[in-house]
Amino acid sequence: MASVVYVELRERRYPIAVGRGQIEQLGEWWRQTELGRRALVVTDTNVGPLYGPTVRAQLEAIGVATTVATVPAGEASKTIERWAQLQYAAVEAGLDRSSVMLALGGGVVGDLAGFAAATFLRGIRMVQVPTTLLAMVDSSVGGKTGVDLRCGKNLVGAFHQPSLVVADPDVLRTLPAREYRAGMAEVIKYGVILDAALFETLEAGAARLTDPSWAVLDELIANCCRLKAEVVAADEREGGLRAILNFGHTLGHALEAATGYEGFLHGEAVAIGMAYAAELSVRMAGLSPVERDRLLNVLRAAGLPIRASGLGVEWAHVIAAMSLDKKAADRVPRFVLAEAIGRVRHGVEIPPDVLKEVWDAIAE
Amino acid sequence: MASVVYVELRERRYPIAVGRGQIEQLGEWWRQTELGRRALVVTDTNVGPLYGPTVRAQLEAIGVATTVATVPAGEASKTIERWAQLQYAAVEAGLDRSSVMLALGGGVVGDLAGFAAATFLRGIRMVQVPTTLLAMVDSSVGGKTGVDLRCGKNLVGAFHQPSLVVADPDVLRTLPAREYRAGMAEVIKYGVILDAALFETLEAGAARLTDPSWAVLDELIANCCRLKAEVVAADEREGGLRAILNFGHTLGHALEAATGYEGFLHGEAVAIGMAYAAELSVRMAGLSPVERDRLLNVLRAAGLPIRASGLGVEWAHVIAAMSLDKKAADRVPRFVLAEAIGRVRHGVEIPPDVLKEVWDAIAE
Repeated sequence: MASVVYVELRERRYPIAVGRGQIEQLGEWWRQTELGRRALVVTDTNVGPLYGPTVRAQLEAIGVATTVATVPAGEASKTIERWAQLQYAAVEAGLDRSSVMLALGGGVVGDLAGFAAATFLRGIRMVQVPTTLLAMVDSSVGGKTGVDLRCGKNLVGAFHQPSLVVADPDVLRTLPAREYRAGMAEVIKYGVILDAALFETLEAGAARLTDPSWAVLDELIANCCRLKAEVVAADEREGGLRAILNFGHTLGHALEAATGYEGFLHGEAVAIGMAYAAELSVRMAGLSPVERDRLLNVLRAAGLPIRASGLGVEWAHVIAAMSLDKKAADRVPRFVLAEAIGRVRHGVEIPPDVLKEVWDAIAE
Repeated sequence: MASVVYVELRERRYPIAVGRGQIEQLGEWWRQTELGRRALVVTDTNVGPLYGPTVRAQLEAIGVATTVATVPAGEASKTIERWAQLQYAAVEAGLDRSSVMLALGGGVVGDLAGFAAATFLRGIRMVQVPTTLLAMVDSSVGGKTGVDLRCGKNLVGAFHQPSLVVADPDVLRTLPAREYRAGMAEVIKYGVILDAALFETLEAGAARLTDPSWAVLDELIANCCRLKAEVVAADEREGGLRAILNFGHTLGHALEAATGYEGFLHGEAVAIGMAYAAELSVRMAGLSPVERDRLLNVLRAAGLPIRASGLGVEWAHVIAAMSLDKKAADRVPRFVLAEAIGRVRHGVEIPPDVLKEVWDAIAE
C-alpha cells in the first residue's frame, strides 16, 4: 500500500508514491502518470547494481525503451562535466521531447539527473526514485536541481519539478547506517519547523530512530513530503516561505564548505547547524531552553552530532562561508530561527558577536 | 523616442524598448526596471569593442558594478565549455541572486548568456541588448536560451525570460550587410505568418530592404517584437501556437545541419526554407501561386537566397536532419504552412514523396 502525496504546482500536479515495495509498482505508476516511451535511467555505482535491474525490468515490461547511465557514487559526480556527459548520453539514447529521465539514487544523482532533464532540449520530464532517506524527504521534492562548481556547491542549476516520485522505504535497508542517520536529520527538521506532532512521534520513537524497519517510517516520509510539498506549492521559486526549509542549513552548508565537503555528510552538518540555530533561537527568538533541549535529545537519539568541537574548523572560515550562502543578502547571512517546536521565522539577521559567541559555545 | 512593447508573462511583464539611440538610455531603462547593482556583461570580440564601453559607462553611471566577459565571435562559442566559463566568471564577478547578466551581441551571445543566467544560482535576471537585426526581432524575445552539442544545435538549454530588452537600430549600421539581410528573413517571416499589413510594408519598401537607415525600421522591429510577444505570451512553453514561428525553419535548420553550420547564415537558410514551405503550401494548404510569388519576390528584394541548387547538399542528409528536428514527432517532420500571406497552420505532416518532389524543384 502506498501513501500518495500530490504536489500542486501552478500548471500541474504530480504524485509522490511512498510505500514499502513501491519500486515494484514503478511501471504501474509510470503508466498512470502517462509518461513517455523512452527513458534514460541515471544511477550510480552503488545503487545501480542493487536496483537498476528492477527499474529496467519495470520499464521494459510496459514497453519503455530504457538506457541506463551510471556515474561514480559520491558528490564528486555533481559536476558540469558529468552533466555534459548525460546530455550526450541522452542524444545517444535517442531521447526526444516526449522522453523521460529517471534518477535512481540519492541526492547527488537526483540533482545531477534533474539538472540534465531540466536542460536537455530545454527541458524534458523527470522521474525521481530516491534511494536514501535524505532524498526521499528532501531533495526529491521541490524541483531544485544542480551541480557544483570547484568554488562552491549547487552554484549552477535550475528549478525543474519532477512528474513522478516513487519512494520505497524498503530500499533503505541497503543504505549505510551513517547515511540513514544523516537523512533522519532532515526528518527532525520538519518537526521543528512545521509539525510539533511529527516531532513528538520522533521523541516517542527515540529508540527506533536509527532503524529502517521502524513501522511508522512510511508515514513519517509521507508526512515530510506533504510538508515540503505544501511549502513548495506556496513558494515554488523560493521567494519567501521556502526559506524555512533551510533551518540548520546556514551553518550546515558553511561546515560542509569549511571541511571541503569531506568532514560531514550533509545531514550531520545540518544536525550541528540545528543545534546552533536552536541556541541562537533561545537568545533571539524566544525559544525556551526546554524545547531546545528536546531538539538536542532527539538529535542525540538519532545518532547525530550536535557539537562542532574537535573538527579543527576555524570561525573565520565558517563566517566567510555563511556570508557567501545563496540566502545571504549583501553578504550578511540570514537565519531561520525557532520560536517553538513546530514554528519558525526566517530571514533573521543576527549580530556578529552573537553568532561568534554561540559558535564558541558549540565548538569548545 | 522609443517604442515600448510589453511582453506579458504569467507572473510578470517586461519591456522591450526599440528606438534609435536607445543604447544611450540603457541606464535609465535599468533604473526604471529596478535591476540589480552588479552585472556581468557578456559580449563577443566583434561587438565588445564597438559597444562595450557605452554599455559599461551606462551601467557605471548609475552605480552598477560591471564586469565584462568577452567570447570569440561566432556560433563556435555556443558550447557547454563557454557556458561553464561564464558560470565561473559570474562567481569571480561576485554575482549573487540579485545580480544581472546582460547579453550584448547577436543570437549567439544572447543564447549563451541567457543560458548562463538561467542556470547561475538556479537563475538570475537577464537583460538583452541585441546588436543584430535577427536578435532584435527574434532571439532576444521569447526566453529560449541554449548551447549546441557537437551533434546538433540548441540541444541543451532552458526557457529563461529577460527582464529588459533594449534594441537600438542605430547599432545595425555597423552590422555586416550579409548579416543584416539574413535578419530581414525573420522580419519577412512575421509578415507571412501573422501580419499581411507588415508584409505589404515590406513589398512597398522593396528597394530599402537592405538599408539599415530605412526610416520605418524602428517600427518594423517593434511590430515584429509585438507579434512575437503575443505569440510567446499565449504559449510560453511552446505547446502549440508558438510553433508557427518556425515557418521556414524545418528545412532551414536541416540545411544548416547538412552544411555543418558553415554554408549559410541562419536567416539565409530560413529564406530557402520559406521558399520551400511556400511551395509545399501551394500544394498542401491552398496558398495561391500569386501569393507564393509575392513571398519569393520580397525574399529576392532583400537579397536572400530562395533556391538550394549548387550547394552540394544531398536529400538524404536533409530528410534525416528534418526528422531529428525538435519539432518532429516520432521522427516524422512537421511543417508550418501558409494558407495565405498572414495566415498559417502548424504541425502539418507531409507525404514523403511531396517533400522530395518539392526539394528536387528548388535544388535542381
